[in-house]
Amino acid sequence: MTGTVYLVGSGPGDPELLTVKARRLIEAADVVLHDKLPGPEILESIPESKREDVGKRAGGEWTPQEYTNRRLVELAEDDNDVVRLKGGDPFVFGRGGEEAQHLAENGIDFEYVPGVTSAIAGPGVAGIPVTHRDYASSVSFVTGHEDPTKDESAIDWEALAAAGGTIVVLMGVGKLPMYAETLRSAGMDPETPVALVERATWPGQRVATGTLKTIVGVRDERGIEPPAITVIGDVAATRGDVAAFLRGRAEPEGADE
Amino acid sequence: MTGTVYLVGSGPGDPELLTVKARRLIEAADVVLHDKLPGPEILESIPESKREDVGKRAGGEWTPQEYTNRRLVELAEDDNDVVRLKGGDPFVFGRGGEEAQHLAENGIDFEYVPGVTSAIAGPGVAGIPVTHRDYASSVSFVTGHEDPTKDESAIDWEALAAAGGTIVVLMGVGKLPMYAETLRSAGMDPETPVALVERATWPGQRVATGTLKTIVGVRDERGIEPPAITVIGDVAATRGDVAAFLRGRAEPEGADE
Repeated sequence: MTGTVYLVGSGPGDPELLTVKARRLIEAADVVLHDKLPGPEILESIPESKREDVGKRAGGEWTPQEYTNRRLVELAEDDNDVVRLKGGDPFVFGRGGEEAQHLAENGIDFEYVPGVTSAIAGPGVAGIPVTHRDYASSVSFVTGHEDPTKDESAIDWEALAAAGGTIVVLMGVGKLPMYAETLRSAGMDPETPVALVERATWPGQRVATGTLKTIVGVRDERGIEPPAITVIGDVAATRGDVAAFLRGRAEPEGADE
Repeated sequence: MTGTVYLVGSGPGDPELLTVKARRLIEAADVVLHDKLPGPEILESIPESKREDVGKRAGGEWTPQEYTNRRLVELAEDDNDVVRLKGGDPFVFGRGGEEAQHLAENGIDFEYVPGVTSAIAGPGVAGIPVTHRDYASSVSFVTGHEDPTKDESAIDWEALAAAGGTIVVLMGVGKLPMYAETLRSAGMDPETPVALVERATWPGQRVATGTLKTIVGVRDERGIEPPAITVIGDVAATRGDVAAFLRGRAEPEGADE
């Protein structure tokens, strides 16, 4: 007997932002394979007996993707129904596409279960819509965590700047000085509004805002750390219009700019 | 007493892809203001007594956005907790940003509740990841339903083509010939894989695939109609690698290419 692998998105971290289907599948699963990205609250809600961590290991090493791929096949061949739980959506910078291909190559049935992506929800909970009829007709998602083996030019920042829409960078705290400079060199207005949303929907969520010119200084002053989402574009300024009436998970005192 | 307005994303249409929070808020709401985009199954699951349709009206006219804005304020001022239910995510081409600004201007508390966007889930349920380490380092979302009062150049297709990532067009069935041609003129390879996902996660979901050169003919031959998502980029070809092992809502016999 062979089990099924469910590639499941956990959403940005708030357990209530799991889909109804994700919650049902997690409850029914024999094993939940995960890393740290679903966030502490969701992981703690899953019985430890069925959790298997394939994220960062002791000593700071990452589990190789090959191990995760192999483990998924092994568990399914041993008749386990497996939830492969991924932060956000499995098919947005999550290597879910690679895992799907590996499962198909090995004859394992799988299902994709989409999740709320933090690329949209992160800005959103800060009061920032990634598109807006008056400010942005398109939105592009990139990752600040480029595969180091890839050519540096894999992301064409100049073209993204020229497209004129909102740019959302996932996992982009560390490389912020690099791409802020690249976008300015590409002709993007230094006064373009930028927001950083740290730990979006997690306990201790924080928001910091500035411009393309000031945001690196804001990041350093506020001590913004991963995980965080960067939103670049005129939409980022609309936060100022709505913040006073925006409800949701309480932000800690003094956490905002 | 004044109520709160919840700007809630319904996800792509499968009722199980509502978030846990969306389901809770819908159950608790006094009124649910919606259009047709959440799809038939989700709308039918909400008691008719609390549903209020602000979508297409008899005679084919659209409810003006101004009416919806005013109605949200009116209901909240009358002490109703209101769910404003939107297809996908409220802040992705949903005019949620405008509604948030209008509520804040009128002193109404609101909360944004993200949803699974069909821009990611639509390709995903067809086996297509919007990003993939080998094929796409970025993804851009645009709408084929541009505001007709805006300058046609609001979407810079040339720059999007140059960015080299995946392009996802929402509500882009009608204008497919226009942007397929624009992207080819901008130098995009006519052999670039393209997929159309009709009624993603709804009953009767269908997938059609082709290339930038052939996709308009495929659309016409298969009779693909709105609502549908267009995915343009090398990722669209990975469907062929995984389709035989991809599970999920059964597609009707012969529905695929």
